[in-house]
Amino acid sequence: MIPKLGSCYYPEHWPEGQWKKDANEMIASGLTWVRIGEFAWSRIEPEEGRQNFQWLDSVISILGEAGLKVVMSTPTAAPPRWLLDKWPDMLAVDALGQARKFGSRRHYCFSHEGYLQESLRIARILAERYARNHYIKAWQLDNEYGCHSTTLSYSASAAEAFIAWLSDKYKSIDILNEAWGNVFWSMEYNSFDQIGLPNLMVTEANPSHELDFRRFSSDQVIKFNRSQAVLMREYTETPLIHNYMGRITDFDHYAVGQDLDIASWDSYPLGFLEDRSTQDEDFKLQFMRYGDPDFQAFHHDLYRTVGKGRWWVMEQQPGPVNWAPYNPEPAPGMVRLWSWEAIAHGAEVVSYFRWRQAPFAQEQMHAGLQRPNGAAEPGLAQASQVAKELIEFTDIGQIQSKVALVFDYESCWAWEIQPQGKNFSYFELVYDYYKALRSLGLSIDILPPNQKDLSGYKIVLVPGLMCLTKVLELAIQSFKGALIAGPRTGSKTPNMHIPKQLPPIIPGIKGTVSSVESLFKCWMENLVECSHVIERCDDDRPAIIGQANRQYLAGWPDQEALIRILSDACIAQNISIINLPNNVRVRDTESHRFWFNYSEAEIEIGKVKLAPSGVVWESL
Amino acid sequence: MIPKLGSCYYPEHWPEGQWKKDANEMIASGLTWVRIGEFAWSRIEPEEGRQNFQWLDSVISILGEAGLKVVMSTPTAAPPRWLLDKWPDMLAVDALGQARKFGSRRHYCFSHEGYLQESLRIARILAERYARNHYIKAWQLDNEYGCHSTTLSYSASAAEAFIAWLSDKYKSIDILNEAWGNVFWSMEYNSFDQIGLPNLMVTEANPSHELDFRRFSSDQVIKFNRSQAVLMREYTETPLIHNYMGRITDFDHYAVGQDLDIASWDSYPLGFLEDRSTQDEDFKLQFMRYGDPDFQAFHHDLYRTVGKGRWWVMEQQPGPVNWAPYNPEPAPGMVRLWSWEAIAHGAEVVSYFRWRQAPFAQEQMHAGLQRPNGAAEPGLAQASQVAKELIEFTDIGQIQSKVALVFDYESCWAWEIQPQGKNFSYFELVYDYYKALRSLGLSIDILPPNQKDLSGYKIVLVPGLMCLTKVLELAIQSFKGALIAGPRTGSKTPNMHIPKQLPPIIPGIKGTVSSVESLFKCWMENLVECSHVIERCDDDRPAIIGQANRQYLAGWPDQEALIRILSDACIAQNISIINLPNNVRVRDTESHRFWFNYSEAEIEIGKVKLAPSGVVWESL
Amino acid sequence: MIPKLGSCYYPEHWPEGQWKKDANEMIASGLTWVRIGEFAWSRIEPEEGRQNFQWLDSVISILGEAGLKVVMSTPTAAPPRWLLDKWPDMLAVDALGQARKFGSRRHYCFSHEGYLQESLRIARILAERYARNHYIKAWQLDNEYGCHSTTLSYSASAAEAFIAWLSDKYKSIDILNEAWGNVFWSMEYNSFDQIGLPNLMVTEANPSHELDFRRFSSDQVIKFNRSQAVLMREYTETPLIHNYMGRITDFDHYAVGQDLDIASWDSYPLGFLEDRSTQDEDFKLQFMRYGDPDFQAFHHDLYRTVGKGRWWVMEQQPGPVNWAPYNPEPAPGMVRLWSWEAIAHGAEVVSYFRWRQAPFAQEQMHAGLQRPNGAAEPGLAQASQVAKELIEFTDIGQIQSKVALVFDYESCWAWEIQPQGKNFSYFELVYDYYKALRSLGLSIDILPPNQKDLSGYKIVLVPGLMCLTKVLELAIQSFKGALIAGPRTGSKTPNMHIPKQLPPIIPGIKGTVSSVESLFKCWMENLVECSHVIERCDDDRPAIIGQANRQYLAGWPDQEALIRILSDACIAQNISIINLPNNVRVRDTESHRFWFNYSEAEIEIGKVKLAPSGVVWESL
Repeated sequence: MIPKLGSCYYPEHWPEGQWKKDANEMIASGLTWVRIGEFAWSRIEPEEGRQNFQWLDSVISILGEAGLKVVMSTPTAAPPRWLLDKWPDMLAVDALGQARKFGSRRHYCFSHEGYLQESLRIARILAERYARNHYIKAWQLDNEYGCHSTTLSYSASAAEAFIAWLSDKYKSIDILNEAWGNVFWSMEYNSFDQIGLPNLMVTEANPSHELDFRRFSSDQVIKFNRSQAVLMREYTETPLIHNYMGRITDFDHYAVGQDLDIASWDSYPLGFLEDRSTQDEDFKLQFMRYGDPDFQAFHHDLYRTVGKGRWWVMEQQPGPVNWAPYNPEPAPGMVRLWSWEAIAHGAEVVSYFRWRQAPFAQEQMHAGLQRPNGAAEPGLAQASQVAKELIEFTDIGQIQSKVALVFDYESCWAWEIQPQGKNFSYFELVYDYYKALRSLGLSIDILPPNQKDLSGYKIVLVPGLMCLTKVLELAIQSFKGALIAGPRTGSKTPNMHIPKQLPPIIPGIKGTVSSVESLFKCWMENLVECSHVIERCDDDRPAIIGQANRQYLAGWPDQEALIRILSDACIAQNISIINLPNNVRVRDTESHRFWFNYSEAEIEIGKVKLAPSGVVWESL
Repeated sequence: MIPKLGSCYYPEHWPEGQWKKDANEMIASGLTWVRIGEFAWSRIEPEEGRQNFQWLDSVISILGEAGLKVVMSTPTAAPPRWLLDKWPDMLAVDALGQARKFGSRRHYCFSHEGYLQESLRIARILAERYARNHYIKAWQLDNEYGCHSTTLSYSASAAEAFIAWLSDKYKSIDILNEAWGNVFWSMEYNSFDQIGLPNLMVTEANPSHELDFRRFSSDQVIKFNRSQAVLMREYTETPLIHNYMGRITDFDHYAVGQDLDIASWDSYPLGFLEDRSTQDEDFKLQFMRYGDPDFQAFHHDLYRTVGKGRWWVMEQQPGPVNWAPYNPEPAPGMVRLWSWEAIAHGAEVVSYFRWRQAPFAQEQMHAGLQRPNGAAEPGLAQASQVAKELIEFTDIGQIQSKVALVFDYESCWAWEIQPQGKNFSYFELVYDYYKALRSLGLSIDILPPNQKDLSGYKIVLVPGLMCLTKVLELAIQSFKGALIAGPRTGSKTPNMHIPKQLPPIIPGIKGTVSSVESLFKCWMENLVECSHVIERCDDDRPAIIGQANRQYLAGWPDQEALIRILSDACIAQNISIINLPNNVRVRDTESHRFWFNYSEAEIEIGKVKLAPSGVVWESL
Repeated sequence: MIPKLGSCYYPEHWPEGQWKKDANEMIASGLTWVRIGEFAWSRIEPEEGRQNFQWLDSVISILGEAGLKVVMSTPTAAPPRWLLDKWPDMLAVDALGQARKFGSRRHYCFSHEGYLQESLRIARILAERYARNHYIKAWQLDNEYGCHSTTLSYSASAAEAFIAWLSDKYKSIDILNEAWGNVFWSMEYNSFDQIGLPNLMVTEANPSHELDFRRFSSDQVIKFNRSQAVLMREYTETPLIHNYMGRITDFDHYAVGQDLDIASWDSYPLGFLEDRSTQDEDFKLQFMRYGDPDFQAFHHDLYRTVGKGRWWVMEQQPGPVNWAPYNPEPAPGMVRLWSWEAIAHGAEVVSYFRWRQAPFAQEQMHAGLQRPNGAAEPGLAQASQVAKELIEFTDIGQIQSKVALVFDYESCWAWEIQPQGKNFSYFELVYDYYKALRSLGLSIDILPPNQKDLSGYKIVLVPGLMCLTKVLELAIQSFKGALIAGPRTGSKTPNMHIPKQLPPIIPGIKGTVSSVESLFKCWMENLVECSHVIERCDDDRPAIIGQANRQYLAGWPDQEALIRILSDACIAQNISIINLPNNVRVRDTESHRFWFNYSEAEIEIGKVKLAPSGVVWESL
């Protein structure tokens, strides 16, 4: 597979006369793919009952004839204003009970049946017209599910659907009361229709209530996406794609991915560092023009799994963005580096957002490959350079990683609901493991919690997994390599209770968490009745228990200790490691090792010389 | 009186088969009391018109037969869901106008007449069945009034009741307009029914309006509690108790206490330090496993007064809790220390919360004396040790303190409404005095603002009391000891106006506060026309005025200065003092001096040797 | 013109018997003016249909007969409670959709037609009775428009009026869709009545939508004020005044000023420093008893322009206030200094707020010239001193400044809507320029964005002006002096789009902003295609482009660099400068140079000796 480049294009923002010139310039710049249409509903269907395809027919032809492959999108992330006249209650509602008004995007509630039908109606209209258009080589469904905190909605539609979901799950209200432990504060229900959404409570809601609401909300996204996917499959065999947004965990991406052919994500390294990272200020200062060296890779590896091997970067940051608290400019060369890193992790396509900066509306300060007047921005030359560099490759095949890390959306929700210490974050816990592994020069696979087969790996890491799935439990039982679990792994039942036989509940590990203490930046479990203690804390409490191949970490180590522990585990498993500085990262493919320099310094490691923002590949 | 131990037990959370084992283990552990039932409404009355007493009859018998004394509770802090179908408007409403939904606890509005009647209905049902049960030796009414900010409600019921309360207080709207100074911004009302609750204003409400709303809200709690108390007295002569939560000041605990026989409070030293203390980070770090060495004692002394001499700790922290931002584990021995400190301050019972950790719902991460599987936690051995140690005592009688400190709920409200400097807190002001006195080795009484008799004391401290009651004014006039008042004492009329004869209005003190300045961590009044100046600031402003036995402090001194001032006052009154380090505290009883070591160090003071977390008692 | 002193007086707060004494004491203290009535509606009209003028007739006579000139006010900033019974929907609504309740002041919505008519009705009643009263020498309309964030209202009235305003502006919905760029996220409207207010969106609203809402909201204030002004002109030729609050930018003060004769503002130097300044903590500590040395001057210069040359300080801080987070006392002498500084900047009247401290309601902790009991506060002696010192002057004429600074309300709104970096504040940007100029000893004029004539100036500064008006563009074209613009100047079209010919769009300057980056406390534009680069950054990017007399700054320099740049510009224009320490400021009038010492130090600069808080004037 030879990766390709692309860009996101909004023909509806530009005069018709410019389309051909744009298409030709894309081709000339080395781009192959172009995504269109995901916010164009009001131009496709300006009012109820009236459609306008003329412009869209025309632009698809122009793009296709220029040699571009088109990703067509369903425009359901931005329903037009007139739909609200028809469905005034289609709006999502925030946790304070306020409807989220029209005037930006993603204002629909996933549980609104009327809107679901409208989304299928417009998807069908588009499918009927364009499914056989031979310029269209893939379809994107909707856009960035969950962005702007839109997975959770506290609307009347959601309340009604939640009751139906619970009724379907538990069948009897007595079972639900038992499953939630509603006896605790006389929270028992007499019937399903008494159950409300878990917002605006006096103090925290029952965690089982909240967790079911999170599962339900995720399921509504899955259902919405699946409805469109099923419909599209009636019309087309081209791949179906969704573009996930980075650092969004409110719905189960693996489950959504099951209904699609390709996973893609939107990679904004500088925006994410400023807006969504919990690294400290020194770190942010060091990397403000580079991005966190592991953040993109983590998502690449995650979406490779979500896409069952097939994945893209649908939107790649090409210059300063507009939406972070501060918006620096990428260091020269970083657009190329980010592109190559995606490719090394297996991206089939890297598509820049956007072809040209818009001069109006919310994102007018968001750079594109071109300025609003069509002049080239620095990102464009770097994209072209990548296109040229790709010519020397015949294939960039992925390898079997030696190390895998389990990442689970449900555990995100569980520990958000009950962190016990206010800064306990499941994402950060897993990400600390990921960073530690990357600093040892390793290529990593990210696995879902229902992974059936671990046989390809030498080490599997399972930090913080609320509850082992049956499937994973079986996989672990037959796994020959080393398993490192904890803290909090296997600490709850699926109903989010403490298991009768106290945690951790992990095959091959004996020990009991008697109590837990959380302190600032610290998490420590007191383990008793452990058959084997591998390492102890200074105060003699068990820190790691188990045996060589089945270990449980009782706490959240600092990064130095974590690297030491994982390094020892690699040595024990004969996995070769490289100790990398925090601004250099590597990724192995079938044929090459790629080196990435996330800094302005020239760096030498062995025989590898990295220029500032440099990328180097060496044959393996 | 020989103090006893107990625990809080939730038979409804455990299989019936376990009750007898639990009861026997409690007895074997040295426990005497067991509190039950305060969250069991949904099990007692699963739906409207249907009650189920079988399980409760049974468990009371089992506990009683095992030798335990039962505290039975009215379950009104957690009304069941079906009541909401009957009274949809019974919910409390927050300051933003949102109903506080069902799904946790304390969701009722104190002003809702329908719910008040329901609470009396269920109380009567329980009283009729159990009042004569000879295993039940006390009743708890409701649970932690005001917890989760539930004293203030902005519901329609509250709005209506507030109007009635105002109409009753002022009789004529002209009198109210005058009493509030409504002329100020044309805020005058033509009739009572025009008056709203003081939330959602453009800028701050009239402080007199707010203060009356706070008084009203406190009165609604008093009325709610009194209604249950009056009803229970029809049926039983066993003591009536409420368990107040620490650091809650939204209602007048003295007034609630007047209608009950015993005050109890819920003592969570580590939770309070993390969640409710305004001490600085260094202090919190020093004491994170010990708790603030004065916080428990302050509440012990407060509730001794609230309970008119009879008080308990109803819920004693036994291990890590779940509800603070961070939840450390108590240092070894601290559960014993906290227990002994309560006893030394006169607690009749120290009852641990809870017997066994629940494996489900909101508090599943809250430790108990036992783990969810019934294994012993460290707190249990410490409780048993206390039980054994108590055997050597025949009585722990309280002494007459030499020093008293006035604490007033209304002043809390007044200075929250008008702090003048944003970190001026009445609680913190009084508490600074308390800490200073404790660091001098003193045992202290806390007095209500309507204290009639000061004759037992050598020093009475009255910081920050908005307005002297007539009763206290008379008491001061005949008081022979030293009075130290200010700042802000006597600075307002009962309507919260500046008195015509400018403040301070305190018998025996001449001087006028001409203006006040607040700076960061600083409060200073400019005093003029003072007949005697005892001490001046560096800039020559009067700092302390008055005479030897009647002093007024013009500002809020730092702790070092405050200790010096109070130390001088003690010396002048021939009160012997001990200068203690900040982690050692003492408490005198009739027969003994108790020493407490809030640290991990071994400490020697004179002939007293304190182990880490140690308690030592010496005969007086 | 000889400036006069005055005070704000609330006869309705005091017994009738005291009015004459107060009036006489005002005269004896050297005061000439007295403002009354702005919060007295409930006393003038206690209920619908009943008016009471007796007290007002009487107090006006007493004040006038004592020799005072009266400023009478329309009382519309504090509508009485009974009006709400008539117009329940007259309340403003906050951004979360909550009505802002009665109980403080300024609760009306500017868009409520019913309230507008009520405000005209009461104004007419007062005009008919008092317009010819010869003691009344001026009228104040309403009080502090916009205070407590009251310009923006999200009420149904506002929503309806906004639609009408848009319809009037754009005529056709297609034009609006184009002007806002609504195609961007399918935000296109089919008709005006579909448009809502830009609150409670999923993510940010279209900036053009927001900017039009801000313009509309400002226009509603203008319309409200103009309605009263037009009415008053029917009755009186005395000057019409409004008292603007400091640091309020939500409506266009220049436009409101066009309908009035005199601008006044309310100057609270210590309150503003604590409550509204973004200077750092060290700065706040240094000046906590003095106020920011430039903040008052900036407003003096601003309101001189708003008032077309005629301006007052209507409310001058006389001691500690009550409304800042902390409320220190002014250093001795500062009330005199603030008064003289206002006079040096051309104030016709300096009026202290308030004559006597109120003993009740919201501002009972706000000092006056007198204590509540009538004793003199330190401010009173200082006011009297100023009154005596003024006798030596025959006139304090204003001079033509050499330097002018453009300040634009619309740019405030634009950069609040789209700051791009979260701490980019237009006010702070302009204020940094102002501070730099003041530190060079300059007297400055502040100009509106539609200034026609620049010919009197040697240097005109235009930082951050979103879009040049046609008028200013023409003025710049014929301007012979030096223009210094940027950053962000001329960067948007009036619709808040990026101009087709990329920014900056400024006559005489060639260059293109290709992209922008914002970092913490930093703003930098990447300029390309510049014909002349005057100065470059360390990394070689253009920092200043243009030619000697037309310069564009590509970023926001720190204060040191800014002073250097402006200092160089002054030298180039032969403007003499003085390098002042940060606590000394000067102001030139026709005849004198005034020096002000904002510190407790004695300072000598050349032959000028300044006492602590000292004011010195020397003849020019």
